[in-house]
Amino acid sequence: MNRPAVLLLSGGLDSTTLLAHALSQHWQVSALTFSYGQRHASEVSRARAVARQYGVTRHVVAELDLRPFGGSALTTTDIAVPKDRSPEAMQTGVPVTYVPARNTIFLSSALAWAEVLGAHDLFIGVNALDYSGYPDCRPEFIAAFEQLANLATRAGTEDGVRYTVHAPLMTMSKAEIITLGMSLGVDYSTTTSCYDPDPSGAACGRCDACQLRKKGFAEAGVADPTRYAAG
Amino acid sequence: MNRPAVLLLSGGLDSTTLLAHALSQHWQVSALTFSYGQRHASEVSRARAVARQYGVTRHVVAELDLRPFGGSALTTTDIAVPKDRSPEAMQTGVPVTYVPARNTIFLSSALAWAEVLGAHDLFIGVNALDYSGYPDCRPEFIAAFEQLANLATRAGTEDGVRYTVHAPLMTMSKAEIITLGMSLGVDYSTTTSCYDPDPSGAACGRCDACQLRKKGFAEAGVADPTRYAAG
Repeated sequence: MNRPAVLLLSGGLDSTTLLAHALSQHWQVSALTFSYGQRHASEVSRARAVARQYGVTRHVVAELDLRPFGGSALTTTDIAVPKDRSPEAMQTGVPVTYVPARNTIFLSSALAWAEVLGAHDLFIGVNALDYSGYPDCRPEFIAAFEQLANLATRAGTEDGVRYTVHAPLMTMSKAEIITLGMSLGVDYSTTTSCYDPDPSGAACGRCDACQLRKKGFAEAGVADPTRYAAG
Repeated sequence: MNRPAVLLLSGGLDSTTLLAHALSQHWQVSALTFSYGQRHASEVSRARAVARQYGVTRHVVAELDLRPFGGSALTTTDIAVPKDRSPEAMQTGVPVTYVPARNTIFLSSALAWAEVLGAHDLFIGVNALDYSGYPDCRPEFIAAFEQLANLATRAGTEDGVRYTVHAPLMTMSKAEIITLGMSLGVDYSTTTSCYDPDPSGAACGRCDACQLRKKGFAEAGVADPTRYAAG
């Protein structure tokens, strides 16, 4: 195929699997990572390592500090990252780790780069099943963004050019994502998911992201290579 | 009214008129300006001056360098800003000063801030009449963004909360915008529109933005207070 695409890469479990998947399908991937003032800034260096490992030569790390907007446990230390929540609690409402409009901002920027590259395909690793209640991880959001993309750009003034947002992990469980990744040879020890890692980069093991990740490895029957903080 | 709103302020003629208009309607305005590596970076300091002048206490200048994406005469010096184009040429196709997906990125960020502020109203000074061929200045783009906003955020999971994108300048000519601004006491000498100002900040007088602005003042019968470069 070798068609160009822009892929949002956070360096986490989902987007790393997404990258391996897109490359296995012979997409010519340009990767976009955001340094947005996130509490877990170590994910940016992980994303760099993952991009290097997969030979992605076009990798932009965009800097957009979302801290002035606040409103999320991931962008301000004033709001604590919830720990040890029950599966039921995780399925209820929008958690404080939700970063307002984050995926909209990320996809908009991916769209900007795609338009310049002449790419009409965007990849995002959102997941509506083990999604921890984020509104911008749902299929209807992705569909609405596709529609917007086709009006927001030159595509909207040209016939026949249409953007597609690929979200192949959308309906997969975490265990299914890990199983897919293992079949593609993903080394999950280099990925990070924790919202609240310690200064050494070790995962807390107790936030929603860690719990969903742990459960995924257990259900997939795969040894969890994550480095968790002691205690 | 005194309802909160987020307004995109570039410091140009349109967005300054928009601000005066929104304040005259008693919106409680928070203003958002982007420093995106634009050639005409002087607009950021103009935006600060305009916000100060209008007593907007909440003003965020977001930094997102769009230069790594390239593809626009406004974000790379490799592409020249077109000068002395005829009105017919300006109405044909998408010009090289178009910044891919810029308004999508700006509105997404405004949406993020609005969600945190509890505002459900966004203001943008786009204009489809004297719009110089930008796809993301059209009514169908604004409508699609509204739809996206209601799916992208907590609003999408709550009943009855809906975002509105206000684009009151959409169907006005530049002359009508200036006439509106004059009736609201806007001092256009502090605004900037030029895509390619000289180092002193003087407008070139020849790019599309300058030409549309000049024509607007002439048609409105208002003396043009813009400081143009000599020669």
